[in-house]
Amino acid sequence: MADSTIQIGILGCAEIARKVSRAILISQTATLYAVGSRSIEKAQKFAADNGFPATAKVYGSYEEVLDDPNVDAVYVPLPTSLHIKWAVLAAQKKKHLLLEKPVALNVEEMDVILAACEANGVQFMDGTMWMHHPRTAQMREFLSDAKQFGEFKSVNTCFTFTADQNFLENDIRVKPDLDGLGALGWYCVRGILWATDYELPKSVIALRNPVYNKAGVIISCGASLFWEDGKVGTFHCSFLTNLTMDLTAVGTKGTLHLHDFIIPFEEKKASYISAVECGFKELALGWVPKPSEHTVTTDIPQEVLMVREFCKLVGSIKNEGATPEKKWPTLSRKTTLVLDAVKASIEKGFEAVEIAS
Amino acid sequence: MADSTIQIGILGCAEIARKVSRAILISQTATLYAVGSRSIEKAQKFAADNGFPATAKVYGSYEEVLDDPNVDAVYVPLPTSLHIKWAVLAAQKKKHLLLEKPVALNVEEMDVILAACEANGVQFMDGTMWMHHPRTAQMREFLSDAKQFGEFKSVNTCFTFTADQNFLENDIRVKPDLDGLGALGWYCVRGILWATDYELPKSVIALRNPVYNKAGVIISCGASLFWEDGKVGTFHCSFLTNLTMDLTAVGTKGTLHLHDFIIPFEEKKASYISAVECGFKELALGWVPKPSEHTVTTDIPQEVLMVREFCKLVGSIKNEGATPEKKWPTLSRKTTLVLDAVKASIEKGFEAVEIAS
Repeated sequence: MADSTIQIGILGCAEIARKVSRAILISQTATLYAVGSRSIEKAQKFAADNGFPATAKVYGSYEEVLDDPNVDAVYVPLPTSLHIKWAVLAAQKKKHLLLEKPVALNVEEMDVILAACEANGVQFMDGTMWMHHPRTAQMREFLSDAKQFGEFKSVNTCFTFTADQNFLENDIRVKPDLDGLGALGWYCVRGILWATDYELPKSVIALRNPVYNKAGVIISCGASLFWEDGKVGTFHCSFLTNLTMDLTAVGTKGTLHLHDFIIPFEEKKASYISAVECGFKELALGWVPKPSEHTVTTDIPQEVLMVREFCKLVGSIKNEGATPEKKWPTLSRKTTLVLDAVKASIEKGFEAVEIAS
Repeated sequence: MADSTIQIGILGCAEIARKVSRAILISQTATLYAVGSRSIEKAQKFAADNGFPATAKVYGSYEEVLDDPNVDAVYVPLPTSLHIKWAVLAAQKKKHLLLEKPVALNVEEMDVILAACEANGVQFMDGTMWMHHPRTAQMREFLSDAKQFGEFKSVNTCFTFTADQNFLENDIRVKPDLDGLGALGWYCVRGILWATDYELPKSVIALRNPVYNKAGVIISCGASLFWEDGKVGTFHCSFLTNLTMDLTAVGTKGTLHLHDFIIPFEEKKASYISAVECGFKELALGWVPKPSEHTVTTDIPQEVLMVREFCKLVGSIKNEGATPEKKWPTLSRKTTLVLDAVKASIEKGFEAVEIAS
């Protein structure tokens, strides 16, 4: 087994890297092969705390991870502003790339990263874990079933959490030079694009009343999205309100609801509510049929399934000469395109911004 | 008992009047005293089909109901465009007024109706049944609890149903000369105003992509709403998608979700989901605490509670010389003000429209 696993190097010791390290450990298809930090002590502590094998390489720089010929792929949880440098370097060193979201500060940077991946034949995937939950696939079937869901018409997503004072003062997500996108809705936009089967909207209008911190980073915002065929979407995201992860999609025949689309309430089972051709009882004294709840169980958490999918693709390239799967970079790029439009709309005083498809 | 009940006359034989007739019957505080229709045969059939007592008066016109001195109050389920005529006449004849929604085509008409009610000392209430469900009061407590919900920040509502071909061709709600407001979101706006404790937004921007029928009536639309203090709201309403009745309100500490805010899935019990100060388990492997579901049971359906509330107020005026309760006309007027702004925004090409408070 060990021989065929993908050897992963991690750049940096971000909080999220703890979760992904655990996922790599559980995955059985990848190995925690190396970790690099600007501080070797931090890297040593991280490796010790997160189940790295005794043989793992611990480096005092990111460069050394990239220069290690035994590293097949890197997981990059660095702040977004550092992605362009390290993702491009990783690709140039022929390391497959699992890149945390938001993947880039804008689509121009994203395209530089994707071009590097393409030129070097490496797989690109972003770290959006919920894409890999079996619930997501089951919900996708529901949305794609013309008999049950009908024609897609509208979608609303919401992702908020109450950041504490420490987060609001010190987290990379409130620093303009680190994750300068702040609360700008990666998950909300991905949720909307997922729901519409990744059809790009024609235009985007940011909601008024975005909130900035003192450094000028957005910590609360939203937008409405409009498609050529009349579909509409809305989202709201914030660091200032209670943890909420809503997705509601409505079609001519069906409705999908869930309240934990990004991180399920529980690790091993996740639910969603579907409703199909609902009407009223006589005199509208109640609904018939009522929406129904569906529970999807999984022994393997979504982040482990993400690692496995990534390793499967990397393994195919490495062992079978396959070419990189285009689906994942395409989804990341579309998400970034929409986020750019939201940001542009805010900057232009909430004007409509067209999205080039 | 019979002596103290409020004697109600119904103008017209609308479908919704069947539900309200049943509610009056169940209420024990009101009597189905009279019904009038432009067709005496329709009125007779309606009375026979809906449990009117043998002594009930059946009239071949609306005027005769208003001229009957024993009618204390009228329930008016006529098309919106007829409200101004019949609601004003009813008030002038000193009949208390339970008026179906939307209450008026615009706030100018609404103000004529309210002025007539005020001048004649009659109670005004609109027919928004869910206002009277005990669940609504319980959810209100949650939203008003600073320790649980915190400061209000955002709200989203959705009310849609799939109208069949017959509805789309013949219902009063698709006829410009009858319910000319079409799908324009009475319930969605009322839900948002309820959630914000009836604080009027400062401005409204309609969502693009509204859908009109051939006669120019809106059958799908939405809007975003903005408050002075930064609160934001969004809604979507449509006759073209599956029955959906969502309300999600998010505060700094809490979240409220429900999927049947207008008409509960079941008549005698209704649920909502509340979440308070949610966070993540270690490594964000799940939520703690999880949102919790609350079920409110009621032996008395919301429309019966509406009739009782109306009769209580009418009885106080009639028997104890009380003055009309201002709360109900105020809520109706605020709802109408916001709907006017949404309509104006659509007509102005989705510009922001300020709401005069």
